[in-house]
Amino acid sequence: MESFALRMTKNGKTPLYRQLYRYIIGEITSGRLSAGEKLPSKRRLAADLGVSVSTVDTAYQMLAAEGYVKAKPKSGFTVLHIERLRPPLRPAACVPKQAPRIQWQYDFDTGSVDTGLFPFKTWARIQRETVTGHPELLNHGARQGDENLRGAIAKYLHAYRGVLCTPEQIVVGAGIEYLLGLLARLFSGAVFAVENPGYPRMGRILQNSGVRVRYVPVDAEGMQIGALQESGAQIAYVTPSHQFPTGATMPAARRTELLRWAQGKAGRYVIEDDYDSEFRYDTRPLPSLQGMDPAGCVIYVGTFSKSIAPSMRVGYMVLPPQALVRWRAQFGMYSSTVSRFEQQTLCRFMEEGHFARHLNRLRIAGRSRRDALTQALYSAFGKQGVTVHGGHTGLHLLVTVHSGLSERQLVQAAAQQGVRVGGLSDYYAPDTQGCPASTVVLGYSGMDEETLRKAANALRRAWNVQASQE
Amino acid sequence: MESFALRMTKNGKTPLYRQLYRYIIGEITSGRLSAGEKLPSKRRLAADLGVSVSTVDTAYQMLAAEGYVKAKPKSGFTVLHIERLRPPLRPAACVPKQAPRIQWQYDFDTGSVDTGLFPFKTWARIQRETVTGHPELLNHGARQGDENLRGAIAKYLHAYRGVLCTPEQIVVGAGIEYLLGLLARLFSGAVFAVENPGYPRMGRILQNSGVRVRYVPVDAEGMQIGALQESGAQIAYVTPSHQFPTGATMPAARRTELLRWAQGKAGRYVIEDDYDSEFRYDTRPLPSLQGMDPAGCVIYVGTFSKSIAPSMRVGYMVLPPQALVRWRAQFGMYSSTVSRFEQQTLCRFMEEGHFARHLNRLRIAGRSRRDALTQALYSAFGKQGVTVHGGHTGLHLLVTVHSGLSERQLVQAAAQQGVRVGGLSDYYAPDTQGCPASTVVLGYSGMDEETLRKAANALRRAWNVQASQE
Repeated sequence: MESFALRMTKNGKTPLYRQLYRYIIGEITSGRLSAGEKLPSKRRLAADLGVSVSTVDTAYQMLAAEGYVKAKPKSGFTVLHIERLRPPLRPAACVPKQAPRIQWQYDFDTGSVDTGLFPFKTWARIQRETVTGHPELLNHGARQGDENLRGAIAKYLHAYRGVLCTPEQIVVGAGIEYLLGLLARLFSGAVFAVENPGYPRMGRILQNSGVRVRYVPVDAEGMQIGALQESGAQIAYVTPSHQFPTGATMPAARRTELLRWAQGKAGRYVIEDDYDSEFRYDTRPLPSLQGMDPAGCVIYVGTFSKSIAPSMRVGYMVLPPQALVRWRAQFGMYSSTVSRFEQQTLCRFMEEGHFARHLNRLRIAGRSRRDALTQALYSAFGKQGVTVHGGHTGLHLLVTVHSGLSERQLVQAAAQQGVRVGGLSDYYAPDTQGCPASTVVLGYSGMDEETLRKAANALRRAWNVQASQE
Repeated sequence: MESFALRMTKNGKTPLYRQLYRYIIGEITSGRLSAGEKLPSKRRLAADLGVSVSTVDTAYQMLAAEGYVKAKPKSGFTVLHIERLRPPLRPAACVPKQAPRIQWQYDFDTGSVDTGLFPFKTWARIQRETVTGHPELLNHGARQGDENLRGAIAKYLHAYRGVLCTPEQIVVGAGIEYLLGLLARLFSGAVFAVENPGYPRMGRILQNSGVRVRYVPVDAEGMQIGALQESGAQIAYVTPSHQFPTGATMPAARRTELLRWAQGKAGRYVIEDDYDSEFRYDTRPLPSLQGMDPAGCVIYVGTFSKSIAPSMRVGYMVLPPQALVRWRAQFGMYSSTVSRFEQQTLCRFMEEGHFARHLNRLRIAGRSRRDALTQALYSAFGKQGVTVHGGHTGLHLLVTVHSGLSERQLVQAAAQQGVRVGGLSDYYAPDTQGCPASTVVLGYSGMDEETLRKAANALRRAWNVQASQE
């Protein structure tokens, strides 16, 4: 290439070297300048364009630094091979589209957080310091998760949940669902007992992971031990602090029974999912089942989805020694599934006390919200109209509506008013009896008090109107 | 509580309100002030301590904001319930410790990146803008990954690898290992064929995930199709761009054979792992197998581990329509396993052109390093002493050493000089024949040219000395 037919403009907006740089990139990516061609000499081009040699030099150096051209001693700059973009894609006609998400006016989903409570500035500051000061974080870290993060989690679990463990027992992973899938493979020959009603996703994940699942009924104290015995299961997956969705807390006596079941036969384990125990309002909670278990039969799993954000994808599990040995033999070579930038940001967020403060704020907000929602529901429907239960802990309530509407009618009427509520029967295994009638599940973590009051009003419109039409 | 026995010091270091605030936290966390107790009135305490009312007020407001106390109209501030810390943990004696990592002087591991090449500032800036400007990112995003990120990946794959797909076909997940584990469950009844030699982790992951695995031999053109036929497999997992570890590129004829095998029977698929195809140096690469396949038999998987960082944990797969339908039915309810902050940072990094520039830089660095290492090895051992192969693409080389030392001796002698090299036989399935003798695998992505030359010298010391001792 002898020279370029480019008109430079001294308009004060774009520096001359940048105009030249962009022009040459355009020539390369369009294919008009191809791999192996030489750029004009700096002096020649500077003279042709009426600019200084250093302007041309700056543009050439930028192109070289970014890999568009290469400097060769004594022979100037040569164009390197660059992929060209093809025309944009046409979507394949046969790819199934997914239904667009519904935008609800009020969403009682149980998996949301109120973004107004998150300390974005603190998080952003720690994250920036983590990314800019620690280049080594680009490379693989420990497979179970970074050691200091596991240390911070161990301390937190001890202080808040009475969990007794060392950092070596902790495995950090991309969410409880991921970890549960691995546990299913770790105990792949076993039968897993899950709660009925329960978190339906967990049963599905276990089945997808290739293990047999038995649904075991839950009463006001959690999983029924007699039914667990009969199920023939080796592994029991439970939510003892705050049973999902009923809200039951497993009392000490039932806990002892459950641990005795686990100790009754070699190879039995309890998986304790403590997903929202940070949010307890009225009474001091029982410490974790894990902390009551000297025999090493409890695998404790938890998450930062409720206490930080569901989009953060950080869960953890605490493996008792025997399970840990087995884990390391089978999964010890698996790469960690959580970005180290996020692991280290989270670790400092915990170590510097921000997490404890954030939890306190969330707990206070959670209580206010629970109270606001409960009050708003009672004033909308009257004490005779609804029963609100299951809210001493956690971020959701159960509401039984005494207007004669079925659960399905309640859910549909709410949807017509732009309100998403879940029916309790969604959490029951297929073909099981005993689901309380006319009961819905309201997660309140995504809305503030004012919004909850408005949402309760919308429910009043939905359910009273509907009731009078029947 | 009437008042506090606290001595305030005007030392200029800690403001008075902060001294008071810390004192009260100490009283609460130690249990001396318990839940339900009232704090002294602001006026009373200010008078007792000889400070202004606003000093006390500031301290009380901070305590209230952080959830230690609660303000009640007309009755002042009441202490809230706070967990107390127990004494620190003693590590359980029975928890097995993991061996500490060896610090190598020169590490030819194939999974490292050179942290000197990463644009930390750009990444940190985009990340900060992502975290502070988008509160909605705290909540769950699309289960297959955020739509704009999938769009950016589709464009990139089309431009660089000739992959033909829409964003709907892409699933983003926490690394290829994770995605492969799910694919194993998606085709859980199938037999999977993997390359021998190959990436040993992949065979293990498939087996851990509960599917049957057959090892199919690789020749200079990649997986042998005759042996694949005989294996009875339904799914073939291959690395056609740059076979790992041999470095073979599957030529067009073998690709056609492989696709014909897949089309030969319903339910057969090829999983194309394109883990390092961005790094090609000498020739224009063949486009992806996926782009050659009109029948929808190829599942394309890729990762940002090599092109950004292994600690980032972002992989993706492109599912053909039939597999996508099946995927959504079985795994459509799984939460995404990648943090949305990182998804969005990565998306903007791609959309704003930083990724293309970074890839260019990496490719240039990769070529220089490969050339430097090859040259250093030939000058250390002579053209007769070693054969270097497999380096036209990717970030590792195979080196066969003609000094009479066995592979094991080579690896051990290198280790004695502080150099980690891998033996080629590590990549062969147990009990298979045909591994070339005295061959090691050198990953060079973690070291710059100067370091590679020193590492080659260290290998010369290791292998020449050893040879003369025999």
